Amino acid sequence: MFLGVPFSIYYEEDALPLLLSGLISISLGLFLWLYFKKRSSNKELSNKDGYLVVTLGWISMSLFGMLPFLISGTIPSITDAFFETMSGFTTTGASILKDIEAAPKGILFWRSMTQWVGGMGIIVLTVALVSIIGVGGMQLFVAEAPGITPDKLKPRIKDTAKRLWLIYSGLTLSETAFLMFGDMPFFDAINHSLTTMATGGFSTKNASMAHYQSPYIQYVIIVFMFLAGVNFTLTYFGLKLKFKKVWENEEFKAYLSTIILFTIVTTVGILIYTDLPFEQAFRDGAFQVVSVITTTGFITADYTSWAPILTVLFFFFMFIGASAGSTAGGVKIVRHVILFKNSFLEMKRLLHPTSIIPVRLNKKAITQNITFNVLAFIMIYISVFVFGSIAVSLTGVDFLTTIGAVATSLGNIGPGLGKVGPVDNFSDLPQMAKWILSGLMLLGRLELFTVLILFTPYFWRKV
Amino acid sequence: MFLGVPFSIYYEEDALPLLLSGLISISLGLFLWLYFKKRSSNKELSNKDGYLVVTLGWISMSLFGMLPFLISGTIPSITDAFFETMSGFTTTGASILKDIEAAPKGILFWRSMTQWVGGMGIIVLTVALVSIIGVGGMQLFVAEAPGITPDKLKPRIKDTAKRLWLIYSGLTLSETAFLMFGDMPFFDAINHSLTTMATGGFSTKNASMAHYQSPYIQYVIIVFMFLAGVNFTLTYFGLKLKFKKVWENEEFKAYLSTIILFTIVTTVGILIYTDLPFEQAFRDGAFQVVSVITTTGFITADYTSWAPILTVLFFFFMFIGASAGSTAGGVKIVRHVILFKNSFLEMKRLLHPTSIIPVRLNKKAITQNITFNVLAFIMIYISVFVFGSIAVSLTGVDFLTTIGAVATSLGNIGPGLGKVGPVDNFSDLPQMAKWILSGLMLLGRLELFTVLILFTPYFWRKV
Repeated sequence: MFLGVPFSIYYEEDALPLLLSGLISISLGLFLWLYFKKRSSNKELSNKDGYLVVTLGWISMSLFGMLPFLISGTIPSITDAFFETMSGFTTTGASILKDIEAAPKGILFWRSMTQWVGGMGIIVLTVALVSIIGVGGMQLFVAEAPGITPDKLKPRIKDTAKRLWLIYSGLTLSETAFLMFGDMPFFDAINHSLTTMATGGFSTKNASMAHYQSPYIQYVIIVFMFLAGVNFTLTYFGLKLKFKKVWENEEFKAYLSTIILFTIVTTVGILIYTDLPFEQAFRDGAFQVVSVITTTGFITADYTSWAPILTVLFFFFMFIGASAGSTAGGVKIVRHVILFKNSFLEMKRLLHPTSIIPVRLNKKAITQNITFNVLAFIMIYISVFVFGSIAVSLTGVDFLTTIGAVATSLGNIGPGLGKVGPVDNFSDLPQMAKWILSGLMLLGRLELFTVLILFTPYFWRKV
Repeated sequence: MFLGVPFSIYYEEDALPLLLSGLISISLGLFLWLYFKKRSSNKELSNKDGYLVVTLGWISMSLFGMLPFLISGTIPSITDAFFETMSGFTTTGASILKDIEAAPKGILFWRSMTQWVGGMGIIVLTVALVSIIGVGGMQLFVAEAPGITPDKLKPRIKDTAKRLWLIYSGLTLSETAFLMFGDMPFFDAINHSLTTMATGGFSTKNASMAHYQSPYIQYVIIVFMFLAGVNFTLTYFGLKLKFKKVWENEEFKAYLSTIILFTIVTTVGILIYTDLPFEQAFRDGAFQVVSVITTTGFITADYTSWAPILTVLFFFFMFIGASAGSTAGGVKIVRHVILFKNSFLEMKRLLHPTSIIPVRLNKKAITQNITFNVLAFIMIYISVFVFGSIAVSLTGVDFLTTIGAVATSLGNIGPGLGKVGPVDNFSDLPQMAKWILSGLMLLGRLELFTVLILFTPYFWRKV
């Protein structure tokens, strides 16, 4: 929050809301820390503690993170402020601000920071600590230092986390430089870079990226959105010029192919259904496809205005997600890869009922447990989408807006369909709908299990 | 086809189209039979042959089944006639006939027969022969005669099939009697009974069941739709008064609870959003819920006209389906039961990563293979829904109509959303869309794998 203060001063705004919010957060944090420091038993955190800490952590970050919005009066309603902050920390990017450009710069910087911090959090969580499906950060130092032992693991996790943060910060600064080179003012450049690398999508402009008609700027954003959707472990290998490792990774290949394929499809669609010239059709297509697939949510064009088929396509795009181990939300490409392979192999299994036919990823057979976990994840994702849609519908929102809002919140994307389409925003939704959607953002960001597991009897049962 | 001739004569219509179609089908069939009889090697059919025979069988039934429509001129277009016939044999019930009541009675009877025959076919397939998930007909005679041996199996399959057909025919006739008791004319009663028991939903009236405002008739239809959605093996036990066996069956319990729960929800919804009196709200709710869940597709009210939330709900209802081993299409309740249990257990697995935790159904642990198959089925179902929607969208159909038409075709239901909602029909869709939807009906009816397996390299590879 204090990082926004220089901007408040430079733009001659009231810096008090940010200072005050920062002080409140620090004091309460200090108090809790000191109070529990003596009483804590210094025990190692268990698996179970992990789930609780992460979920509660994200919620309390959002509770404190909304202070600057409330105190400054930029967002007077608690519902709206919580929605906006949760949308920030979960790197969703759905906004209830109707006139973004009228908000104080310091507050807007804090708004962008929530996304950047949220993205960082996810990298540490999924890349360095929890490698969901064997493709996370663990592989990074296992590959770097063979013969690793458990007691050497901890410093190395810290080490890995540091490297990844370095890449993250480095890419953010490079993007800022590239954008300024295209004549974007420094304030906008740094803000958009923070939210690009987090695949967040908060903009400092009312029209999002459509504000900048410069093709150069739009292409820069496309490239960095794409990079933000790559597994950061692979980016690390890429920077070390180990391109073979990158190219051999099946998820990366699938990610790249998905983007290329859907960009072509969308471009052709735009050319058929509208009168746009080729370069703009391609640029608009590529930008929107990369933005939705990477779950960033910047927009330069309204994807619901081209043609019905493209609206349908973009709705389904919301269920794809980029790479595991990136800042992107959603289902993630690697899960789709496993899903499709497994579905295909199921037919082979039907023809050869006695043989055991495992799914292979990166040339290795993956265990049945992982396949199960992936299928369960996707099924729960769809169930949450269904029940979330029913819940939001109950608040009186129409069908198209409902499924768009739920898909985009759960996938941490940003823009949806209908009344929450790319050129609209979420402010007019009923209060209850905003709370439900905030919950869905959290569920999606923490990959469902982390949150849902707290609601099972297994979690609370004493061993 | 010949069974329709008496109606043609009674109603003084031209009986020639039915006679001619029947003769053409018989002659071609006889010719093929005689020609291949000598040349066939009398080999047992393999698993692979089974998939091919069933898929091609359903397609050729539809090709010959459309002859009466074409020859009589009731449906002049081949696309429309094929769509209507496939919709019949797959027990879908989506129709392109704009003025059903103007069609000759003999032809309408044949139209209803396609559904009844299709329903029969499915019972034989899934109940007597292929017991998808261990809850099929096999259990019937295993339960009846312990210590069964493979060479005794064949006559018993025949025996089982006979019993099931007897129940099917018996229920159809009872329904006819019940409907006539409510003053429905014989012709309409027999037609609606044929299509109820098949969970098909073709009606002889333009307004479907809304034509009959008699609550008695509507309740009779509700009861028989419900029965048609029960596993026929359980119905057999029920008729033998072995109620414990019925009540202990988890799928039956889930089926009943689903219907009750969603009827309550829908009734409450109708009461809140419309001015209908309680009894009619309950009747309309129950009728539409049972109709969509059992994938029958009769309607007495427009479920898309009540409120946005109820439209959303009914869209999701299309993905439920009734019991395995009934004539219903769709995903089927037992798969949802396994899915939900597995999703829930996945969290337990996360907390106890070293233990093996299987899904239990009817108090028995089911094998991982079955769980895999169920998850793969549901995932492929959703993928087919997605790709089907994209394909239909490409023909220029709007979003809501597209997803409604695809969901209802794939689930073999009948009415959809938007322009193919309960009070509309499919005639105005583009030709291409009709072909795609016909294909989806077939895919759904034959439980995906049977058809899709033909398109894998594994199927055509020589062993």
